[in-house]
Amino acid sequence: MNTIALSAERLLARLHHLGAIGRTGDGRLSRLAADDADKAGRDCLVGWLHEAGLEVAIDRVGNIFGIWRPVGVESEEALLLGSHIDTVIDAGIYDGCYGVLSGLEVIETLKASGLCPLRPIAVAAFTNEEGVRYAPDMMGSLVHAGGLGVEQALAAIGTDGTRLGDELRRIGYAGAQEPGFLKPHAYLELHIEQGPVLEREGLSIGAVATLQGISWQRVTIEGVANHAGTTPMAMRRDAGHAAARVITFLRESALAANMPAVATVGSLQLEPNAINVIPARAVFTVDLRDPDELHLREAETALAAFLETLAQSEGVTISVERLARFEPVMFDAALVGTIERAAAARGYACRRMSSGAGHDAQMMARITPSAMIFVPSIAGISHNPREFTPEVDLIAGACVLLDVVRDLVLPT
Amino acid sequence: MNTIALSAERLLARLHHLGAIGRTGDGRLSRLAADDADKAGRDCLVGWLHEAGLEVAIDRVGNIFGIWRPVGVESEEALLLGSHIDTVIDAGIYDGCYGVLSGLEVIETLKASGLCPLRPIAVAAFTNEEGVRYAPDMMGSLVHAGGLGVEQALAAIGTDGTRLGDELRRIGYAGAQEPGFLKPHAYLELHIEQGPVLEREGLSIGAVATLQGISWQRVTIEGVANHAGTTPMAMRRDAGHAAARVITFLRESALAANMPAVATVGSLQLEPNAINVIPARAVFTVDLRDPDELHLREAETALAAFLETLAQSEGVTISVERLARFEPVMFDAALVGTIERAAAARGYACRRMSSGAGHDAQMMARITPSAMIFVPSIAGISHNPREFTPEVDLIAGACVLLDVVRDLVLPT
Repeated sequence: MNTIALSAERLLARLHHLGAIGRTGDGRLSRLAADDADKAGRDCLVGWLHEAGLEVAIDRVGNIFGIWRPVGVESEEALLLGSHIDTVIDAGIYDGCYGVLSGLEVIETLKASGLCPLRPIAVAAFTNEEGVRYAPDMMGSLVHAGGLGVEQALAAIGTDGTRLGDELRRIGYAGAQEPGFLKPHAYLELHIEQGPVLEREGLSIGAVATLQGISWQRVTIEGVANHAGTTPMAMRRDAGHAAARVITFLRESALAANMPAVATVGSLQLEPNAINVIPARAVFTVDLRDPDELHLREAETALAAFLETLAQSEGVTISVERLARFEPVMFDAALVGTIERAAAARGYACRRMSSGAGHDAQMMARITPSAMIFVPSIAGISHNPREFTPEVDLIAGACVLLDVVRDLVLPT
Repeated sequence: MNTIALSAERLLARLHHLGAIGRTGDGRLSRLAADDADKAGRDCLVGWLHEAGLEVAIDRVGNIFGIWRPVGVESEEALLLGSHIDTVIDAGIYDGCYGVLSGLEVIETLKASGLCPLRPIAVAAFTNEEGVRYAPDMMGSLVHAGGLGVEQALAAIGTDGTRLGDELRRIGYAGAQEPGFLKPHAYLELHIEQGPVLEREGLSIGAVATLQGISWQRVTIEGVANHAGTTPMAMRRDAGHAAARVITFLRESALAANMPAVATVGSLQLEPNAINVIPARAVFTVDLRDPDELHLREAETALAAFLETLAQSEGVTISVERLARFEPVMFDAALVGTIERAAAARGYACRRMSSGAGHDAQMMARITPSAMIFVPSIAGISHNPREFTPEVDLIAGACVLLDVVRDLVLPT
């Protein structure tokens, strides 16, 4: 390949510039979908897209596209690079923004190099990926992929009682394009890992081959409240103890399973929750994730079987409510291989991995070959002001994205 | 022994009569220390004491005594039979009242029999055993035993902002006697078990040899909050899982220990308590009880050692706060033996046992030989309208009390 280099300086400057937009009085960063801060961030991004000479298109759900259609290229299908620029409340500056700005950086770099790609290249900033103000999350990419009707999305009512459609109109981002207007040839998303794996293993690049399936359940255990002093251990029907058995079972099962399988009990309430009363009731959530649908189902089945045995051995009644279920996403194997080769060619230590969090890429994978590139998150921290990725890794990730794009759209 | 028989009919009628006093509009029974309902219950009891021809004495903390001093008996020390008539909120009719009314029944029966005891016999209803309105519980007997100053007790501020001393004066039960004025020769308390042991084992009588020591601790485990999807199992510092390990450890340890040992985690809070966040913090209570001080200390030591190991293996920080600690009470072995013999002579199935709950008897044990007689509580339920002891068992308990009293105070 010709040696063409992106501008690390420009990429990092933009990342920090965008990260300064939407700070509240106490310095906390929040740009929630279609609020005033989001508008300011969008305006900033659109300015850069124009500066880069890209065609700017906004669709009806507010997704922003910066499209480079080289003269003479007839293909309609674009190589799409994307992510989001909305944030959680009290966010870091990397989540989402890093992917969008790197996509822009790659396109600007290629455009300046004089090389002519075989097809259009576009960068997308999808609306409401975080889902903090409006549900569901990953909304803009879901609408783009045809998984949610645009009218339904625009009718979403926010936590503040607002309607997304009204708010998009108010901030000037209710665009004219029908969602899905831009047909992707493939989709690539560069993102911070938001987990600790790459840092712990001393790696710079993750080639994300799968996105974990998610199973959320709420378990209710009904035992019998009784006096903590007068009820012998063998006669207890302790809902709290039964819940503890489930928690240790899930930990042991997930540890025994393949590495990417995780199981979490994050929320638990006891009743009556008194020091000297045996718990009559325990309500807790179970979050199971696995990149393999078969394994995820096995984990669900094993939990169900354990709960049945437990109900008998502990003399309790157990009911389960399903809260959410998403099948795992397999990213495009050829794209993942291309990412690995690109990383290797640059000398970056890389591994295949699974994403534990949800991303716009999982929606795009419904309609086009997709994959993700991860860079390390220090201590795995994200959705937090302490979210941090060293500059050397940010640059490495953008360089890999650049090389993968070149591989995909330049004539060999 | 001469065959003298108590009046089961009178005892049961009084129990139901007293149990009808203090019902709220919705039928729930509540007679909290020194409230209007308690006054009505006290007035009823005092009426019966007078009817029985007993000397009625009220001390400064409101304890009520009905004393039979047979003519010609010179001993000052009385055989004291007692319990309490205050209740919890939404109570059953047996807890406490059964012991007081049985004591009265035994004295009336002996008085009517023409037999002359060697010393006075008295029945006591101690103030504020339940501790629902004023702390501490078992207050009246504690003051009687010299464990709490009368001024301090009277200064207690209730959950409703009232002062116990004011309320006792208001209801006419701020008596003139100095607490402890009546010197006991021995103390006997007949009580419902409030636990399931006697019923499960098909026994009528429990000879209570010990009252469990209590150790209350609050444990705080600090882990690290992290994304439930992106944090591999082996890298977690999950405060909730560590808490679950403690709960199962306590259960297994208590099961492996001697039967009366119990361990309960009744209260637990997780933070941030979100479905998709690994718990950063778990705060829970530990209630350990054992009738043997040495075993209770061993249980505390074993827990401390487990927490230390756990902190290392789970990568969490654990701190422990002591909330309460009461040493076990050993009741008088001779009295316990007398109870067992009395039960056997009547043909009642009986066992030695430990009380898991606190009782006035534990305060009296500080100053005089004491013991308790238990009768079954169906399903172990107490502090609840469903509290129930079959009449046949109520009568059996009162008969055993009668025989033990005869054994202690009649010339052989």
